[in-house]
Amino acid sequence: MIKVGIVGATGYVGCEIVRILNKHSKVGISYVISQSFEGKKYSEIYPNLKNIFDMECSGLNAEYICRNADIIINCLPHGISSSYIPMALENNARIIDHGGDYRYKNVEIYEKWYGTKHQHPELLSLAVYGLPELYRDKIKTAKIVANPGCYPTCSILGIAPLLKQSIIDTESIIIDAVSGVSGAGRNTELAYQFCECTENFKAYKVAGHRHTSEIEQELSLLAGQEISITFTPHLAPMKRGMLATIYATLKHNIEVNDLINIYKQFYKNEKFIRICEEGRIPETKFTAGSNYIDIGIAVDKRKNRVIVLSSLDNLGKGAAGQAVQNLNIMCGFDESEGLEAPGLYL
Amino acid sequence: MIKVGIVGATGYVGCEIVRILNKHSKVGISYVISQSFEGKKYSEIYPNLKNIFDMECSGLNAEYICRNADIIINCLPHGISSSYIPMALENNARIIDHGGDYRYKNVEIYEKWYGTKHQHPELLSLAVYGLPELYRDKIKTAKIVANPGCYPTCSILGIAPLLKQSIIDTESIIIDAVSGVSGAGRNTELAYQFCECTENFKAYKVAGHRHTSEIEQELSLLAGQEISITFTPHLAPMKRGMLATIYATLKHNIEVNDLINIYKQFYKNEKFIRICEEGRIPETKFTAGSNYIDIGIAVDKRKNRVIVLSSLDNLGKGAAGQAVQNLNIMCGFDESEGLEAPGLYL
Amino acid sequence: MIKVGIVGATGYVGCEIVRILNKHSKVGISYVISQSFEGKKYSEIYPNLKNIFDMECSGLNAEYICRNADIIINCLPHGISSSYIPMALENNARIIDHGGDYRYKNVEIYEKWYGTKHQHPELLSLAVYGLPELYRDKIKTAKIVANPGCYPTCSILGIAPLLKQSIIDTESIIIDAVSGVSGAGRNTELAYQFCECTENFKAYKVAGHRHTSEIEQELSLLAGQEISITFTPHLAPMKRGMLATIYATLKHNIEVNDLINIYKQFYKNEKFIRICEEGRIPETKFTAGSNYIDIGIAVDKRKNRVIVLSSLDNLGKGAAGQAVQNLNIMCGFDESEGLEAPGLYL
Amino acid sequence: MIKVGIVGATGYVGCEIVRILNKHSKVGISYVISQSFEGKKYSEIYPNLKNIFDMECSGLNAEYICRNADIIINCLPHGISSSYIPMALENNARIIDHGGDYRYKNVEIYEKWYGTKHQHPELLSLAVYGLPELYRDKIKTAKIVANPGCYPTCSILGIAPLLKQSIIDTESIIIDAVSGVSGAGRNTELAYQFCECTENFKAYKVAGHRHTSEIEQELSLLAGQEISITFTPHLAPMKRGMLATIYATLKHNIEVNDLINIYKQFYKNEKFIRICEEGRIPETKFTAGSNYIDIGIAVDKRKNRVIVLSSLDNLGKGAAGQAVQNLNIMCGFDESEGLEAPGLYL
Repeated sequence: MIKVGIVGATGYVGCEIVRILNKHSKVGISYVISQSFEGKKYSEIYPNLKNIFDMECSGLNAEYICRNADIIINCLPHGISSSYIPMALENNARIIDHGGDYRYKNVEIYEKWYGTKHQHPELLSLAVYGLPELYRDKIKTAKIVANPGCYPTCSILGIAPLLKQSIIDTESIIIDAVSGVSGAGRNTELAYQFCECTENFKAYKVAGHRHTSEIEQELSLLAGQEISITFTPHLAPMKRGMLATIYATLKHNIEVNDLINIYKQFYKNEKFIRICEEGRIPETKFTAGSNYIDIGIAVDKRKNRVIVLSSLDNLGKGAAGQAVQNLNIMCGFDESEGLEAPGLYL
Repeated sequence: MIKVGIVGATGYVGCEIVRILNKHSKVGISYVISQSFEGKKYSEIYPNLKNIFDMECSGLNAEYICRNADIIINCLPHGISSSYIPMALENNARIIDHGGDYRYKNVEIYEKWYGTKHQHPELLSLAVYGLPELYRDKIKTAKIVANPGCYPTCSILGIAPLLKQSIIDTESIIIDAVSGVSGAGRNTELAYQFCECTENFKAYKVAGHRHTSEIEQELSLLAGQEISITFTPHLAPMKRGMLATIYATLKHNIEVNDLINIYKQFYKNEKFIRICEEGRIPETKFTAGSNYIDIGIAVDKRKNRVIVLSSLDNLGKGAAGQAVQNLNIMCGFDESEGLEAPGLYL
Repeated sequence: MIKVGIVGATGYVGCEIVRILNKHSKVGISYVISQSFEGKKYSEIYPNLKNIFDMECSGLNAEYICRNADIIINCLPHGISSSYIPMALENNARIIDHGGDYRYKNVEIYEKWYGTKHQHPELLSLAVYGLPELYRDKIKTAKIVANPGCYPTCSILGIAPLLKQSIIDTESIIIDAVSGVSGAGRNTELAYQFCECTENFKAYKVAGHRHTSEIEQELSLLAGQEISITFTPHLAPMKRGMLATIYATLKHNIEVNDLINIYKQFYKNEKFIRICEEGRIPETKFTAGSNYIDIGIAVDKRKNRVIVLSSLDNLGKGAAGQAVQNLNIMCGFDESEGLEAPGLYL
Repeated sequence: MIKVGIVGATGYVGCEIVRILNKHSKVGISYVISQSFEGKKYSEIYPNLKNIFDMECSGLNAEYICRNADIIINCLPHGISSSYIPMALENNARIIDHGGDYRYKNVEIYEKWYGTKHQHPELLSLAVYGLPELYRDKIKTAKIVANPGCYPTCSILGIAPLLKQSIIDTESIIIDAVSGVSGAGRNTELAYQFCECTENFKAYKVAGHRHTSEIEQELSLLAGQEISITFTPHLAPMKRGMLATIYATLKHNIEVNDLINIYKQFYKNEKFIRICEEGRIPETKFTAGSNYIDIGIAVDKRKNRVIVLSSLDNLGKGAAGQAVQNLNIMCGFDESEGLEAPGLYL
């Protein structure tokens, strides 16, 4: 039984991890850390878990965190985990981090897009970008797995086969993406109030969202050349769900079915990636509540553009589900352990 | 491995049963019957289940239905199942029925409230009302389990301890209940169109909903006397979820904590019933996606009224979850097999 | 041109008042006071009003408030308005107050339910309860009009004809009401966050909501005897809208159509009250965005109970619309000036 | 007093036109035609209009339609209006048409994208594309005003200044747009059912939506050269609202503020077009319920792309509001008569 500790456990990602791990046959949750709710039962904060997960929340004590878990899942925002990660590594704990800190090869890009000094650049070499479909082997033994952002997961997996096959003009990539409100976390800002969000649709951080740099890093690695993109995130009036509509110019004429086959081939061993048949496209309700990502492909023949539609649950494959998938890989478990639930549809 | 067949499988209740049974370790789905989608893959209708449950839908053929399942879960509306149920019983198949046909002791009450002639009144004696918390023993061996309606499940379980303990004036019961839109089924009527429902709240079938009679039958049995109630259903702009606010006049002064203890005692062996502590009340998001029912109790001292708040997922404990719970009981399985998932919260 | 000042103008009620008054032909808004947004353009806070109402927000300066308006509409919570109301009265300004402070005849009831000392009990005699359908004449000349709460407006107007005609058992009144989330104001509490509210339904402040006392005061005045009620508010996942389902036992048998006629007669001169024909009941979308209140009546013959369904927009007739209606009465304008807009439906 | 008849009046666009015209000081609605609801009061279908607009719906009788209106607003889908339009023109009635039939200069493009034969190509020369900001003068005297589609209105106005000033690479235009569900009309298809839409986001008709051709026609006219685009519509879980995120490559470096000034200059006399200041972008709640369109501009400097965010109410400026704006122009009224209402925000 692997002991897993969750730090920053009372946010929405933490809540989803608890919900998944609670049914995991090979893992025990050894603590849930919450600065805001120290001393409270987890099921008082999330009464859906009453009688199911009633553990008391602990405060943010570095020693306690480091000594009581084989794997620590950090759900605190970037920067904050630095207070305990070095000590955790010394204690031979391994980390799955939801912050941005360990996602970058180049610390300068992190520092530029996050507007802050990285506190442990020396640890970057221990970190692996936690996208199993691209880095499964490295994840197995990684000390730190940097769980990708939701937009990057949705975007990178949607574009990877096109870049690997050199099918598209690398200058032409535009990612127009939409997220449910839970992507903003358990946040009391006015902008995320019910009356501000319901029946409303908007873009935000146009041409300036941090995830742009994370997507670009991985696309560049896939293409073997520097790639920059235009990325526009939007907010839709729903809890969960993410859809990226990705545009790129095709270098040559290619039939949509040939593209679909390239995707199927590229992801042929990937259980959690489903490629839609021709004429079918994903909807967020197909993956909500699950660890699946659905990818549909269309071609605008008149413009010779490919349009990829990539959809996942921002809390599932976009965060908590992927963290558990990484955990399974790190521990040598069946990769889908605890993640068998299909999307909810409704 | 028990063979379970699902008839009327492509409605929302059928979809939820498939989602639950798909993970059930002791059950195999032997067919999914759908008149509308015969010949189509189930996962084409519900793409959330792609690669997970791709079985082809079959047409409504009585012989096929009866010969290929140990247990048949009927999700067709009342009346229609009569075409195959007698044959199924001859074939030693057992039935879990979501229609109203087999819920009544008194066929006249059924015929009055449903406005139709019952086609097999002779089979009523084989049927057990499928509320495990009240009829567990009879369900074990029942030939026909009449799965209760969502409002009745929510209401009866909310009131049962009060009646059993003769705490309330039996003339005073008012049930004011609210359902999510999935309670109306996969329905193309205008009233259930997105733009008609969103940002809207309304009552419907005021003082005339069929479930009134079903609730009254069971409350009368609990109280050992004829009981009639006022019941008002409402529609809220959400997919899943049900909340009943139940009013009754207390015969004597009684503290809220004593009432809570009566409920805890009454349901002390019931895993899926959670009684809220004093001052806590249920919200539908605590049970959405699960088989749990949460019950909170308050007292309006100034009026000597008890107010019971009872909440469940109309597709979960209110329909599909309860059907699987019944199936587990009928087969001697652990009652919570396949039903371990907690509510989603978000 | 009447000069109207709005204090606490950047909450949702203030925003709705600005939206209505902006089209009012006989009123000019002389200032909008906002402590949080002092110095900002109103249309920066509510960009729907860009180019339409761009006035700069002023700070909470009592002298400025009192000297620059004929009528001051106070949208601050109870208690806070005491800092300027006496001075305003000295300056011959009249007040329309959205707080609870001036709604009560009996200061002790206010102090008990609001848990605070009233700061100007001597002013209560100057105040009129601002429900035009009951107090139109007094409102005309009132110095202070205490604009009713949303639940009280919806409830009192729904019950008034029954009490006036002595048709119901006065001990039997139960009000089960539902509000959209804007009723909580422009509030950053976690409970009103989008992900906490959407797809969720819950009761709150069961048997303890302040509006209970306000409803009871007015029902008692209508009945000419002390009346107490049970009142349960709920929160539905929508922005605007309120529905009260009101239960009372009929003293004698009476046909639903006779009840409907009593209501029609009682409200025969009331433009903003619409009584539904038999078999019709209100939905919140019929009044959302308007100053109308729709009332439907049903009878549960088996229990001899009347069920009144009363529906309005909590921001319209439940707050801002009613304030403007009161303003029109106070100034001798056509009562529906600025309030002609029908409900939105969608 | 101009007599206006509405054909196909009980759909959502018709309902919004009635709501607007009902307050219009210079127009009287002379009939409302509805095949589905012939003989019913309009306010029975839309009870928000009870006591406000109770006219009885008439059947689709060509003679009646043609003889009883100065202006006929057709809200029936394309094709159907052909049964009465020629007769209407003979009777000197003028037409505002919401169908696609009269939007095209080139009948072949209509026939290709709509998959049907045009029934009156000879009338195309009488028709003017009803986008006031581009064709105001021609609309004044037009016999037939082809009211633009919602996506075209949102897109064309968002791009027009860029093309007029030859600022962008005309091959690079991508329009990624999102609509609320009312855009699908009062439609009982399963896809628009509440449970299918809520908490869901999807693209549809990718690279194949009819509005593509309408947008291309107008962009080509603006640019003075053939222009083709990629257009992807999406459906968001909300009633009203549309946002287009428009991408194009800039020919030269240009600061965002210079672009904003170009837009302000281009639309300097347009009341209903609001250009956002730098750093501000539109949200659909700013225009919902109004005839406004908000346009925000950003530049992705790293990619030298302009990103235009264009937002309106699909039922307002995208349909009914624009129809009334056209009507005002046709009749020589103040263009904003009846359209003064600001967006609702909530």
